Amino acid sequence: MVFFRFTCTSCGKATEEEALRCPLCDEPMDVEADLPSSFPPVKPKETLMERFRDFFPFADPRSDLSLGEGFTPLVDMEALGRSFGLSSLWAKNEGANPTWSFKDRGTLTGVIHAMEMGYDRIGTVSTGNMAASVAAYGARAGIETVVLVNKGLPREKLGPIAMYGPRLIKVDGDYGRLYHESLRIGKKLGIYFINSDAPFRVIGSKTISYEIWEQLNRSVPDWVVVPVSAGGNLRGIVQGFVDLVSMGLLNRLPRFLVVQAEGCSPIVKAFEEGAEKVRRFDSPHTVAHAIENPFPPSGNQVLRLVRANGWSCKAVSEDSIIEAQRALAFNGLFVQPASAVALAGLKKAMADGTVEQGQSAALILTGAGLKYTAVFGQHDLSWTQCSLDKLEKALR
Amino acid sequence: MVFFRFTCTSCGKATEEEALRCPLCDEPMDVEADLPSSFPPVKPKETLMERFRDFFPFADPRSDLSLGEGFTPLVDMEALGRSFGLSSLWAKNEGANPTWSFKDRGTLTGVIHAMEMGYDRIGTVSTGNMAASVAAYGARAGIETVVLVNKGLPREKLGPIAMYGPRLIKVDGDYGRLYHESLRIGKKLGIYFINSDAPFRVIGSKTISYEIWEQLNRSVPDWVVVPVSAGGNLRGIVQGFVDLVSMGLLNRLPRFLVVQAEGCSPIVKAFEEGAEKVRRFDSPHTVAHAIENPFPPSGNQVLRLVRANGWSCKAVSEDSIIEAQRALAFNGLFVQPASAVALAGLKKAMADGTVEQGQSAALILTGAGLKYTAVFGQHDLSWTQCSLDKLEKALR
Repeated sequence: MVFFRFTCTSCGKATEEEALRCPLCDEPMDVEADLPSSFPPVKPKETLMERFRDFFPFADPRSDLSLGEGFTPLVDMEALGRSFGLSSLWAKNEGANPTWSFKDRGTLTGVIHAMEMGYDRIGTVSTGNMAASVAAYGARAGIETVVLVNKGLPREKLGPIAMYGPRLIKVDGDYGRLYHESLRIGKKLGIYFINSDAPFRVIGSKTISYEIWEQLNRSVPDWVVVPVSAGGNLRGIVQGFVDLVSMGLLNRLPRFLVVQAEGCSPIVKAFEEGAEKVRRFDSPHTVAHAIENPFPPSGNQVLRLVRANGWSCKAVSEDSIIEAQRALAFNGLFVQPASAVALAGLKKAMADGTVEQGQSAALILTGAGLKYTAVFGQHDLSWTQCSLDKLEKALR
Repeated sequence: MVFFRFTCTSCGKATEEEALRCPLCDEPMDVEADLPSSFPPVKPKETLMERFRDFFPFADPRSDLSLGEGFTPLVDMEALGRSFGLSSLWAKNEGANPTWSFKDRGTLTGVIHAMEMGYDRIGTVSTGNMAASVAAYGARAGIETVVLVNKGLPREKLGPIAMYGPRLIKVDGDYGRLYHESLRIGKKLGIYFINSDAPFRVIGSKTISYEIWEQLNRSVPDWVVVPVSAGGNLRGIVQGFVDLVSMGLLNRLPRFLVVQAEGCSPIVKAFEEGAEKVRRFDSPHTVAHAIENPFPPSGNQVLRLVRANGWSCKAVSEDSIIEAQRALAFNGLFVQPASAVALAGLKKAMADGTVEQGQSAALILTGAGLKYTAVFGQHDLSWTQCSLDKLEKALR
C-alpha cells in the first residue's frame, strides 16, 4: 500500500487509521498522499485511475472496476461568455460520465479504497446522483451495495438506482441523522459508506482539476464556479489545484465561486452572517434537488476555504436557475438544474462586480439534464403542428 | 475544400454534386475522401474532428461547433463475456456523448458539411436520439434548426428536444413519407436535412471504429454487434474499419452482427427470406423504440454488406431485450432498450453457433438508459423500507 494519511480539515489532526470524520472534532478528513514529480503524458487507452495512478495512494488502479469515468469535455462556451463580458467561459461537462454525474469519479476512488481495505460491502446515503453512481460501481465490482434513501423518494427516482440491483432501502427518519447513523453502523458492521464527503470520495474530484488544467494548455481560469451541496466536490476540486501548485505546475490557485440555491443555502447564509459554523437550513426547497442538502457535512470546511482564500459565495433564485438552465441548453448543453446553478451564480457575481469584466471562468456542470425531466413544466417549451401536405408551406 | 465525392452504395454512381440519395436508383450514398498516411497520436485536448481531421473532407474541424462528442469509453465486460464463453467482451458506451447517444458524432459532421456548403438552416426527421442531437448542435451553431417529429409523440419525449429551442414541428401524416418529403422540401428551400442515413451523418460513425481499434491496442474483436434501425450507423462503423484496412493498419474487417427487435425487423426478415430488397415492416412494435424504423432507408445497403461479407443478422424477442438491459445494468451500464438489443442478439448468436465459444466481441451501446425511463415498469425493481431506529438490525 502506498503511503497516505488522513488529516482533519479543521483541527489538523493527522492519522494513518481509517477515519471518515475527525475523531477529535467531528469535522471531515482530507487524504494526504505523495504526489508524482511530473504530469503523465496522455495515452490513447487508459482508465482515469491508470492515467493518474501516481496521484492516488492505491496499490493498483483497478481497471477492472472502471466504467469509463472522467475524461469529460471542457466545452468552450465562447459566445455565452462574451455575452456577459467574460474573456473566456468554459463548461466542464460532468454529465458525460458513466452514470451522468461527477459522482462517478469519487465513487470509483471510494470503491477502490474499500476493496483494498478488504471490505466486501459498500453503501451510500443519497437521493439521486450518488445513489445511482454507487449502485453502478457496486454492481461492476460485484459486491453487496447498500443504498439508503429517504422514505419519500418517488418511484421515478428509485428506478435509475434500482436498475443496477443494489440493496435499496427507504429509511423512515431524519435524513440528516441518517448520514451520521450510516457511518456508525458501517463501522460496526463492516460496511464502507462512500457518503458525499468521505475522504476517498473527495479525492476522486481532484481529477476534475487535473483535466481542466491540461485542457486549458496547462493553465487555469480566473474563476472556477461550483454548485455546492455537501461540500465534498468543492473540496476535491480545490485540492486538485493545490496539488498542481505543490508540483510546481501552477503558480496560484484559481479563485472559487461557491454557489447554492437560495431555497437551500446554509453555507452562503453562514458566510454572509460571518458565522464560523454552518447551521441547519430550515425548510429547504429548490428545483436544484441534487444540491438540496440543508446541513452539509463539509460545510464548515467550505467556509474555511472560502474565507482563508478570499473567495466568494452566492445564493441564486429559482427563476435564475431555470433561466440559466435554458441558456445552457440554447448553447447545446442540457444540464440538471443543480448544474445550472453555477451559471446563475456567475451571472450574479458579474452583476455585483465580484467577477470582473474581461475575466475568465469555468463552470462545473455536475450532472445531465435527463436526470430531472420534471423541470420541463417550468420551461416555456414550444412546438407547432401541421399536416404533411402543408409542411412545405410552413417551412417556406 | 478538400476533395471528396459521393458514390452510390448500390449502383456505384459517383458524383461530386451534393446528393443525399442516388439520382439514378434512389439508394443511399457514401462519402469517399482521401485518407491520411498514418494514424494521429493522441493529444490531451482535442475535439473529435481535430483528432481525426485528416480523415474527413472538411476545410476546418470547426472546434467551435464541438460539444465534446466522441472519445467514449470501451468498457471491458470481462465477467459478462466469460459467463457466455467469450474470450473478451467489450462495450462501446455511446451514452457518454453530449446528448447521450452515438448520434452526436454524425450530427457534428453533418452540421460542419452543411455550414461549409453555406446552408443557414438545418433539419432532421426523428422521434428521439437524433432529434435531440440535431437540436443541440443546431443551438450550438446558432443556426435555424427544424426538427420534424410525428404527430403522436408524447409530451415527455418532446421536452428533451424542445429544451434546446429548435423549430419543433409535429407532422400529421405518414412518417415514412416524411423522410423523403423532408429531402425534397430541404432541397427546394435550402434546408440541409441531416437525416438518419445522410452521407455526411454516416461518416461521423466512422470515428467509433477508429476509437475501438485504438482502444484495443490497434486490433479489432472477432465480432462487432450493432443494433440497426435506418442502417446509417452500421454503414459508418463498417466504413471506419474499411478505412483502417485501406491504410494498412488492419488486415481484415471484424465480422458484423446486425441485430433488430423481432417487433420491427425488416432487414432480418429480408435476409432470412433471401429477398434483395427490404420491405416495409407491418405494425412495428417494440420496447426498443429508438430502432423502431419499419422501412429503413439504408436497409438494402445493410443487406448487401451482410451478404457480401458473409456476416449475420438476428432478430430478438422483447423478453430477451429486457433481460439484456438488466444484465448490462447488473454490470454497471444502464443503457436504453435499443442498445440492449446488441447483447440480446449476441446471446442468440452464441446459442445457435453463429458466434463461437472463445471468440471476442464488441457491443455498440448506442444510447443512455435515462433516455427511456418508461421501461422501469417492465423490470422487477425492488426495494425495502425500514425505520432509522431499526436500520442497524436490518443491515446486520
